[in-house]
Parts: sequence; structure tokens; C-alpha cells
Amino acid sequence: MTYCVAMLLDTGLVFLSDSRTSAGVDQINTFRKTTVFQRPGDRVLVLQSAGNLAITQAVASILYEQMAGADGASSLLTCPNLFEAARLAGDALREIHRRDAAALKDFGVEFNASLILGGQIRGEAPRLFSIYAAGNFIEATPETTYFQIGESKYGKPIMDRVIRRSSSLSEGAKCALVSMDSTIRSNLAVGPPLDLVIVKRDRYSVARQMSIDADDEYFHSLRDLWSEALREAFARLPEPGWLNRPLP
Amino acid sequence: MTYCVAMLLDTGLVFLSDSRTSAGVDQINTFRKTTVFQRPGDRVLVLQSAGNLAITQAVASILYEQMAGADGASSLLTCPNLFEAARLAGDALREIHRRDAAALKDFGVEFNASLILGGQIRGEAPRLFSIYAAGNFIEATPETTYFQIGESKYGKPIMDRVIRRSSSLSEGAKCALVSMDSTIRSNLAVGPPLDLVIVKRDRYSVARQMSIDADDEYFHSLRDLWSEALREAFARLPEPGWLNRPLP
Repeated sequence: MTYCVAMLLDTGLVFLSDSRTSAGVDQINTFRKTTVFQRPGDRVLVLQSAGNLAITQAVASILYEQMAGADGASSLLTCPNLFEAARLAGDALREIHRRDAAALKDFGVEFNASLILGGQIRGEAPRLFSIYAAGNFIEATPETTYFQIGESKYGKPIMDRVIRRSSSLSEGAKCALVSMDSTIRSNLAVGPPLDLVIVKRDRYSVARQMSIDADDEYFHSLRDLWSEALREAFARLPEPGWLNRPLP
Repeated sequence: MTYCVAMLLDTGLVFLSDSRTSAGVDQINTFRKTTVFQRPGDRVLVLQSAGNLAITQAVASILYEQMAGADGASSLLTCPNLFEAARLAGDALREIHRRDAAALKDFGVEFNASLILGGQIRGEAPRLFSIYAAGNFIEATPETTYFQIGESKYGKPIMDRVIRRSSSLSEGAKCALVSMDSTIRSNLAVGPPLDLVIVKRDRYSVARQMSIDADDEYFHSLRDLWSEALREAFARLPEPGWLNRPLP
């Protein structure tokens, strides 16, 4: 399982992913699900992936091959805009689908993969895309502050409640970590280390890229403080008056 | 979709369910998913259901027929203990499976149904069971404070954080409503009115049974206060110091 979340804010983008993969509870491994492609001063792109690891690694591999190619074909490092970059990633998914889907089906394995791609290419505002297994994709509009892939439900309520386009990158990072914490607590197949990438608007390079372990001081204190704050906030909520009223 | 949650606490049980059913976004209806069976002074049983409505209604129908039967066969009102009651509910599911599963399969419809059954029968402590579509079931042990069926993920983190066996029934009801609120906000197919049933230990009858509308005063204020408390608690969390440190 995987949990990836990416936010598009007024001042830039925040990406957070876990790194646990599981093929059954006795096959737990650590694989990074976030990849950064950048040409400082010109562009920065961040790719997150969820689903079948063989598929998503193959997609990344195709994208790297394109970048290394000398044939002048479009790649994430040369494409003119982020829409084209999302199309390249979607096309890579389709290529793996053509190659692998039938064989996977023979073994009863679903073709399961999804991507988030975001960043900024000079000449455009920052953009964020969510790419489906079929290679098609949607883009974040002004009403969309974030995309999630993988185990998204446990960590969604806090995102909906606090993140706005006007949230700062610090608030974004904090919220992503709280959202990840809720997910880690509820799904054993999501776990640290976490990969956090922050892109500031109009910088065309990564502002911060960190690996956050379970014993990271900030994450650790955030988890404790948030648990405590939730319990306190819950305790302060009024209790229903009707329970102890005499029965009619 | 449906969300049902039931808690087994030291002082009794709390059950909460929504009432929205959907067969596509243009077929939204209100059906109650909680049924109470009681013989005051002797027993009180509460059944919650999620999944295919035709299946779960048929199950309830079988259970009612057994109760009305004059043949002396076991029913929810006569069985000696809650384990036997769970077995009756599981057997009813299996009967519907035998009758309907093949026909459903012809139409590509999965046999999807799950139940929660809890309460107290004189001579026993309160008990709580989660019953699967296959008719088998598990029982809450001292480590288990609650079961959920249906759309369970959005509302799970708060349950895990605040509910203990020692929580009061008021706290239980409050937490169930907060958990339901998170679910309603994130899944349009879960909605009010809500059915809340509270069973006090050793009373052998329902202590409180309420239908809670969206404009219910307590639920409404709980939703607002909780949103505000979450946002405040989030705002008080320290922000990461590293974001604005100069890049290495």
C-alpha cells in the first residue's frame, strides 16, 4: 500500500509520500515513491506513484530513458509545458499496459497504478496532475487544492478541513504530515520513512527535499501534539444532554 | 453507501447508522439501517446492516418471520445467548445467499452485505458481533471497543484516538457523531437522518433511540464546534522550522 498527497498552493507545491510496499504481510519493503526531475532555473517536476511497484518502476524507467535519449524526442526535461509532461507520463503507463496487462491478468493481477505529477516549467504557473492507470489524467483547477493516490481516505478529512489555496507551504507540509500520521495509524501497510518535497513558486528548483524517519524530531512531536490536541478538543465538545434525561 | 458504527463500552453499547442508500447518484433514498429487537427485562438486540439493500432487508425479514413463528424454532427473541443470535443472523444471510447469489452474479452484482449485531440477553454481559457476507462472524473482545461496517475509513481515526472501553455512553455517542460527521463530509452517499441507539448495561431495554436530522441542534453544533476545534488545534501545532532555513 501507499499514501501520496500533493498540494497546489498559491506559493508553490507540497508533496509527501510514504515508502512502504507490501506484497503480503511477510513481504514488506521500503521503496521511494517520489521522484524529482529538475533543470534548475527552467523546471522542476515531481512524480509520485501508487499501485503495483513493477508497473510504476517501469514507468519511471521509460521517463528516464526518454531523458537520456539523444534522438531529440520529448522528455520531462524538454517538454514545453506540464500538460505535455503529464501526457508523457500517461503514455508511459499505456506502454507498460500494452506490454504487461495481459500477462498480469493471466495471474489474476489487476493493472493497478496511479501517478501524481506536479511542478512548474518556466513560462507557466505551477500545475498539478492526477494520472489514472488508463493513462488519462485530470488537472487541479482553482477549486482543487490537492490530489491523493493510494490509501487516501484516513488522511482526507483533515485535508478538507484545513487546506486552502492560500495556505502557506509550512501549513501545507504540516497538514500533509498530520494526514500521513492518520493514515499510518490506521493502515499498517503505510509507513515511514516519508519523502517530503517542497517546490516554491517561480524558483524552478526544489526548495526542500527531505526524508523523514519515524524518529524525526519534528514529525514525532507533531504526532504526539496532534493526538493530544484531538483528544482535548474532543473532550471540550459538549456531551449530548438527552442521554441522562429521564426516559419518556 | 452506508456507515454504521457500534461500540461496546463498560457501561453499555452505542449504535449509530446513517440512512442514505444509493444505486447511482440519481437514485438516492432514505432507508433505516438499524433495527431494534427487544423483550424488555429479558433482552435487547440491535442489528445494523450495510451493503445491498435487497439482501439486508431479506435478512431482517427472515429474522422477523422466525420471531412470529409459532413452531418454537429459535429466534432473536427466544435464543439463549447473543452468540446464538449472531448465528441466526449469519444463517439468514446464508439463506439469502443460496436464494439470490447466482441470480445476482448473472447481472454482475456482487453478494455484498454485512451486519453488526449487539446487545444484551439476561444472564450474559453485553456482547457485540460483526457478521460477514459469508455468514461467519467475529465477536468484540476486551481489546475491541467498536465495529464498523460500510464506509468506515473516514470516521476511523477519531474512534481509534478517543474511544476506550471505559468511555462513557455520552462520550461514545459524541464520538460516533463526530466519526459520522467526518464520513458525511467525505462521502456524499452517506447522509442523515441518523439513527442512534443506546443500550445501558443490565437494563435489557433500549435506553435511548433517536433519529437525528441534519438540522438537529446538538449534531449541528457538534459539527461546527468540531470543525473549529480541529482548525484551531491544527493552527496551534508548531510549523516545521526547516522550511525557511536557508538551503544548504
